[in-house]
Amino acid sequence: MAENPEEVLARFEELTVLEDEFDDAELQILRQQNALTSPLYAKRAAVAAKIPHFWALVFEQCPPEVDQHIQPSDSKVFSECLETLEITRFEIDDPKGSPRSFSVKFGFGLNEHFEDKVLEKKFWFRRSQGGWMGLVSEPVKIHWKKGKDLTGGLTDAAVKLWDAKLKAAGSANGDAKAKASSLPEYKALMKKIEQGEEASLSFFAWFGFVSSWRYVSAEESEAATAAELERREKRKKGEKVEDEPEDEPDNDHQQTEVYPPGEEIATIIAEDLWPQAIKYYKSTHEGDDEELSDLEVEDYDDDSDEELDIRGLVQGKGKNSKSGESPPAKKRKT
Amino acid sequence: MAENPEEVLARFEELTVLEDEFDDAELQILRQQNALTSPLYAKRAAVAAKIPHFWALVFEQCPPEVDQHIQPSDSKVFSECLETLEITRFEIDDPKGSPRSFSVKFGFGLNEHFEDKVLEKKFWFRRSQGGWMGLVSEPVKIHWKKGKDLTGGLTDAAVKLWDAKLKAAGSANGDAKAKASSLPEYKALMKKIEQGEEASLSFFAWFGFVSSWRYVSAEESEAATAAELERREKRKKGEKVEDEPEDEPDNDHQQTEVYPPGEEIATIIAEDLWPQAIKYYKSTHEGDDEELSDLEVEDYDDDSDEELDIRGLVQGKGKNSKSGESPPAKKRKT
Repeated sequence: MAENPEEVLARFEELTVLEDEFDDAELQILRQQNALTSPLYAKRAAVAAKIPHFWALVFEQCPPEVDQHIQPSDSKVFSECLETLEITRFEIDDPKGSPRSFSVKFGFGLNEHFEDKVLEKKFWFRRSQGGWMGLVSEPVKIHWKKGKDLTGGLTDAAVKLWDAKLKAAGSANGDAKAKASSLPEYKALMKKIEQGEEASLSFFAWFGFVSSWRYVSAEESEAATAAELERREKRKKGEKVEDEPEDEPDNDHQQTEVYPPGEEIATIIAEDLWPQAIKYYKSTHEGDDEELSDLEVEDYDDDSDEELDIRGLVQGKGKNSKSGESPPAKKRKT
Repeated sequence: MAENPEEVLARFEELTVLEDEFDDAELQILRQQNALTSPLYAKRAAVAAKIPHFWALVFEQCPPEVDQHIQPSDSKVFSECLETLEITRFEIDDPKGSPRSFSVKFGFGLNEHFEDKVLEKKFWFRRSQGGWMGLVSEPVKIHWKKGKDLTGGLTDAAVKLWDAKLKAAGSANGDAKAKASSLPEYKALMKKIEQGEEASLSFFAWFGFVSSWRYVSAEESEAATAAELERREKRKKGEKVEDEPEDEPDNDHQQTEVYPPGEEIATIIAEDLWPQAIKYYKSTHEGDDEELSDLEVEDYDDDSDEELDIRGLVQGKGKNSKSGESPPAKKRKT
């Protein structure tokens, strides 16, 4: 057994080489999984399209980590007009990209709040020069109808700051980052965030999310990944490897992140809600066996913004209603 | 959009057919994953064997759902003599078995508590006639040294009841199940469980675990799986499928289950602690970069049963000690 520090350090390096290999294996498994399940997701989409409110009901039963961020007014939009949901691993075959990147595409019908038929949010899995790894995104423009913005201007302000930063970076002499906080769009967004009440923040503000840490560009990530691959090769040969430079925090970004839990929520949607959607949909009907034949879908045109329950909306009975029984877990699957 | 109950029911069936296909895909992915990672786990075992206390340190950093069940006296055994840990998907190529079944094999050195060099606990993924699915196990005999049983006789009593049930089933005229609660071994185990304080239950009692629901035999599972496959075929053809008969609860079993969270813990060990072991091991050294060269492994022969910390034991500094800093998360991986 290695007991001296040098040997322990050498073992550390050996473990890191192994971690690299596990990482490669994981990417390969993700690709195989994608190939195996993509046709099934396509079939599922075809069935779901024939089921009224399928995705709204899935969101109603979704894991609490996501559910807690869905306000009654968000639920109402989902139950009124959410028609499709689709996750795509859009970089799966891109040697410069990552199988961990994904896009979340919502399809909507006509509604009173926004003009968009599709809201697509992309998440890129990237690596920073300092070794941070995670998902980054770009604010998505939502074309809100007048007076109907559920986020109180947050997504608009996030998009404006994003565009202003891009413009500043294009015209700046390498000092764009330092200047972000002096942009008027920065101050405008800061003000919006300060005004907002986080407790009732609309789920739609998630479309403005950028990063839980800081934005990492495709160029930075490519360079950092190439440098890491070089280190991996060295480690494999047992050569000494220089540590990555420490990552600098980006307070400018963190103060203007409109949706701090955005990455966590995206991950749960992609890795739990999406693959388990049938289970969540079915759980809305659990305990309904006898009543399923009485199933009635009621229309409603209630415009109020009070506590809503999609299941109540689409089936005429609510999980929160006094007469509604809580569905018993009939079967356990591990 | 289907709005009438009959159509909704038909969609339900279509979704169930899809769920079956997703289930097949998942098993295939498990097999591919096993093939890809098995050689890496073998390499990891070789490196870990050269690192003192590797697995004890992994257990020290393990997820809280497991950690909360590890008593100071258990930690002490791990740090003294836990040498290897191995998860095997022992039914991965068995057409009658499941890739979800696994064995957890602990390798121990000489110690004051028990004679065993290996304690192996197998978990079979099984299906009951009533559609329950989950992991079942059999009590593992631990050869405790005199007066050194950390479970206060629980594992012995669980093994005795198990053997008595087997014997009764062999000699009984089909009524073995109803008779379980009349066995003296049943009453003996009930008494042991009542006497025990759950809060300080040793992790080693986990070796006595049978099922979170009830024991399901290989024969029952095979028959239930065959019946389910028939239903799947019918569903695929759009034929009407009879529901499975409801599962009967088994109070007799539940009252004598020595380790109710056993399945959950086994799953976390197999799906988190085991694949992420390097990460957990490394996290014991996080924040240690400068101190790593001062790393010292101290021997100890403290026999007391007070609050212990393996990291403290093996490195001479504790995470609970006043001078010990909590390791900062340096890098995030998603």
